[in-house]
Amino acid sequence: MKRKIIYNQIAGQRIQRVEALSDGIFSITMTLLVLGIKVPISDTAKSELDLWHALMEEGPQFITYILSFITLGIYWTVQVTQFHYIKKYDRNLNWISLFFLLAVALVPFSTEFLSGHIHFRLAIWLFWLNTSLIRVAMYVHWDYASRKHYLALDPEGEVLISFAIKNRIVVGQLLFVGAALLSFISTTLSIIAFLFIQLNYAFAFIGKGRAHHHKTTDESEDEH
Amino acid sequence: MKRKIIYNQIAGQRIQRVEALSDGIFSITMTLLVLGIKVPISDTAKSELDLWHALMEEGPQFITYILSFITLGIYWTVQVTQFHYIKKYDRNLNWISLFFLLAVALVPFSTEFLSGHIHFRLAIWLFWLNTSLIRVAMYVHWDYASRKHYLALDPEGEVLISFAIKNRIVVGQLLFVGAALLSFISTTLSIIAFLFIQLNYAFAFIGKGRAHHHKTTDESEDEH
Amino acid sequence: MKRKIIYNQIAGQRIQRVEALSDGIFSITMTLLVLGIKVPISDTAKSELDLWHALMEEGPQFITYILSFITLGIYWTVQVTQFHYIKKYDRNLNWISLFFLLAVALVPFSTEFLSGHIHFRLAIWLFWLNTSLIRVAMYVHWDYASRKHYLALDPEGEVLISFAIKNRIVVGQLLFVGAALLSFISTTLSIIAFLFIQLNYAFAFIGKGRAHHHKTTDESEDEH
Amino acid sequence: MKRKIIYNQIAGQRIQRVEALSDGIFSITMTLLVLGIKVPISDTAKSELDLWHALMEEGPQFITYILSFITLGIYWTVQVTQFHYIKKYDRNLNWISLFFLLAVALVPFSTEFLSGHIHFRLAIWLFWLNTSLIRVAMYVHWDYASRKHYLALDPEGEVLISFAIKNRIVVGQLLFVGAALLSFISTTLSIIAFLFIQLNYAFAFIGKGRAHHHKTTDESEDEH
Repeated sequence: MKRKIIYNQIAGQRIQRVEALSDGIFSITMTLLVLGIKVPISDTAKSELDLWHALMEEGPQFITYILSFITLGIYWTVQVTQFHYIKKYDRNLNWISLFFLLAVALVPFSTEFLSGHIHFRLAIWLFWLNTSLIRVAMYVHWDYASRKHYLALDPEGEVLISFAIKNRIVVGQLLFVGAALLSFISTTLSIIAFLFIQLNYAFAFIGKGRAHHHKTTDESEDEH
Repeated sequence: MKRKIIYNQIAGQRIQRVEALSDGIFSITMTLLVLGIKVPISDTAKSELDLWHALMEEGPQFITYILSFITLGIYWTVQVTQFHYIKKYDRNLNWISLFFLLAVALVPFSTEFLSGHIHFRLAIWLFWLNTSLIRVAMYVHWDYASRKHYLALDPEGEVLISFAIKNRIVVGQLLFVGAALLSFISTTLSIIAFLFIQLNYAFAFIGKGRAHHHKTTDESEDEH
Repeated sequence: MKRKIIYNQIAGQRIQRVEALSDGIFSITMTLLVLGIKVPISDTAKSELDLWHALMEEGPQFITYILSFITLGIYWTVQVTQFHYIKKYDRNLNWISLFFLLAVALVPFSTEFLSGHIHFRLAIWLFWLNTSLIRVAMYVHWDYASRKHYLALDPEGEVLISFAIKNRIVVGQLLFVGAALLSFISTTLSIIAFLFIQLNYAFAFIGKGRAHHHKTTDESEDEH
Repeated sequence: MKRKIIYNQIAGQRIQRVEALSDGIFSITMTLLVLGIKVPISDTAKSELDLWHALMEEGPQFITYILSFITLGIYWTVQVTQFHYIKKYDRNLNWISLFFLLAVALVPFSTEFLSGHIHFRLAIWLFWLNTSLIRVAMYVHWDYASRKHYLALDPEGEVLISFAIKNRIVVGQLLFVGAALLSFISTTLSIIAFLFIQLNYAFAFIGKGRAHHHKTTDESEDEH
C-alpha cells in the first residue's frame, strides 16, 4: 500500500509563526493612523493661541487614533488569550487566523470612515461589520481548536475556559448589535455606545475579575 | 597546518532570525495596500446613498487588497511549512530566503498593477512573473535544504514530505502558466482563473486533506 | 459549588507576545520619521554646491529623526530592562503596556511638532506631556508587577533593582519638568536641556556604571 | 556596607529583544522603498506598448529598490552572524546596536539620493558615509563583545571567528573607500564598483566557502 502525503495535510502547523505574523500586523495597523495626524504648519501660527487652535483642529484625528488603538488592543488581547491554550495547529486554523488578520488590518479604515461620517448609519454599520468579522473569526478559531482537541487543557479546564472565551465574544457581539441598532434613533447615541463598550473592555469597569492562572497541561515546560 | 575560517562559511546560520525577518516583511506587505484605500471625503456626501456610492467607488481597492492578502497568505504558509522541517541553515539558504522576500515585497505592486490594467496582457504576465519568482525561490529553497540534508526528517518522511511540497509548487506553477496563457483568448478569463486558483489554495475546495502530523526527527524537544 | 472563570481573569498572560508587539511598534515608530525625509529634487541642482545646499535644507529633518530615534531607544531600553525581571503577567499589566505603546507611537508626532515650532512653549509642553505619559506608564507597570509579586527576584534583589528602575524614571521626570520650566525663560534653553538629557541617557556621560548581572530567580533555565 | 545598583548596570541585557527590534527595523526599511514605486496611471496607456513604456519609466525605481534590499540584506546577515556567537549583553552593546539600526534605517534615503543624483560626487560620498557608519558600528559591536568575553566561543574558536568577521568588515570598508575614490575619475565608475561589491557579497562569486559550523560553547542547548 502506497502512503502519500498531500501538502494541505502538512501546511500551517507552526503556532509560533502565526503569533509572530499577528504581532507584526497588529503593530503596523496600530501605528498606521498616526501617519494621518499631520503636524500643523508653523507659518500660519503667530502666537501660542494660534498654535493651540491649529493643534485642536487635529483633535478628531487623535480621538480616532486612540479609539482605533484600543479596538485593536482588545482583539489582540483576545487572540493572545486563545493562543495561550492552543498547543496544536493545522492549515484550517492557519487560514482562519489569516482571515482574522485581514479583517484586523481594515480596522483603521473603518474607524476613520466612522469618525469622518458620524451622522451616517452606513458608517456605523460598516464599523459593526468590520468588528463582527473579527469576532466571528475569533469564535470559529477557538471552536475549531476546541473540537479538534488542540487545546492544552484538561476536560474540566476546557469547559471553564471555553465558556469564558466564547461568552466574551458572544456578549461583545450582542452589545455591538445593540449599539448599532441605536443608530435608527440617533447615530450619536450609537457612537457613544461603541465608545463605552470599547473603553469598558479596556479598563474593565464592569466585569473586573481577579487574575486567574489556569494551568495548561504542558505548563511544566513553561511557555515563556 | 593553519586553519582558517572565512566569513561566508559562518554567515546566516540562524533559522529563527530568517523566520522573524520573514514575518516582519510579510506583515508589512500584507498591510501595505490598506494605505491605498482612501476614506471617501465627507463633504460631497449628503445622503446615505451618496456615501454608499462613494464607498462603492473604493470597491476595486478592497478587492485588490483582499487578493493581495490571500496571495501573500498562500506563500507565507508555504514558507512556514518548509521551515517546520528545516533544522540547519547556511548563507546560501539565507540569500535564497532574502531573494524570496524581495519578490514577496513586490506583490502589492504587481497586484495593484493588475487590478488597474485588467485588459492588458502585460499586467497579467507581470503578475505571473512576480509570483513565478516566488515559486522558483521556494522550490530552490527546499531543494537545496533537502540535498544538503538540512531537514529534520527520516529518509521515508523526507520522500513523502518533499513530494508534497515540491508537487504543490510545480502544480501551482503549471496552473499559473495556464491561466496566463488564457490571456491570449481574453484577459478577463485569465484573471478569473488567477482568482479561482488563489481562492482554492486558501479555502482548499479541491485537494482537501485531513491534517497530518509527520514527526520531525527532533520533535522530542518540541518546536513551540 | 459551581466554579466559573470570567474572561478578564485569563486574559493577557503571555509576556512573550507583549514583548513582540512592543518590538513591532517600536521598530515602526523608530523608522516612521524617515518617511518624512524627502530626497531633494535633482532638476534644480546643477552643481555639487547646489546639491549640498538642497541636502542641508533637509538638515532639521535629520536632527528630528535622530532625536526621535534616541528618545524611543531610551524608553525601549527601559521596557526591555523591566521585562528582564518580570515572570508573570495579567490583563492589567497587559493594558498598562498597551497604553504605554499608545504614547510611544505618538513620539514621532510630538518630536516633529517640537522641531517645527521651537519658539513655542506649547510645543515644549506637548513633548513633555507625551514623554511624561510614557514615564508614568513605565512606573505604574513596574510598581504593579512588584506589588503583585510577579518579579523573578529574591527579596533583596527586588529592593535593589526596584530602586534602580524607579529612581531612573523619577529622576528623568524631574529633569524633564525642569527643562520644560526653562521655557518660561527661553524655549531654546528648554530644547537644549531636553537634548542634553536624552543624549546623556543614550551615551551615559554621567551615571555610568559597570555592567551588573543580578541573577533572576529562574536564571537556571536561561531566558535566551 | 550598603550595596547599590544603578540603572545603567542592569539595562539592556536581553539579546532576544535586540534581535526582535532589529528584525522589525530591517523588515520595514527593506519594504520602505516599495512605497515609492508608483503604479503607472492606466488612463494614458492605450496599447500594450504604451503600458510597457509607462512601466519602463518606473525602471530606475525597481533598480533602486533591489539595490537597497540587497545592501540591507548584507548588513542584516552580518548582524545575524554576530549574534550567533554572542551570549551576553549589556547597555553599551544595546546602544551600539541602536546606533547601528539608526544608520540602517537611513539606507533607503541614501540609496534613493544616490540613484537620483548619479553624476554627483556628493551623493556617492553620502552613500559611502551611511554604509561606513553601519560598518563601524558592526566592528565596534563585535570588538566590544569580544573584549568583554561575551562570546559563546572557546579561545581557539574566538580567534578564528573574530578574524573572519572583522576581516569581512575591514575588507568591505577598503573596497568601499576605493569605489568612492573612483568618483574623482568618474561617478559612473564609482556606482558600478558599488554595485559589483554588493552583488558579490550577495552572490559570493568571489570568496565562496563551504558552510562551516563552528560549535558555540552552549551549543548543547540548541539555539533554535
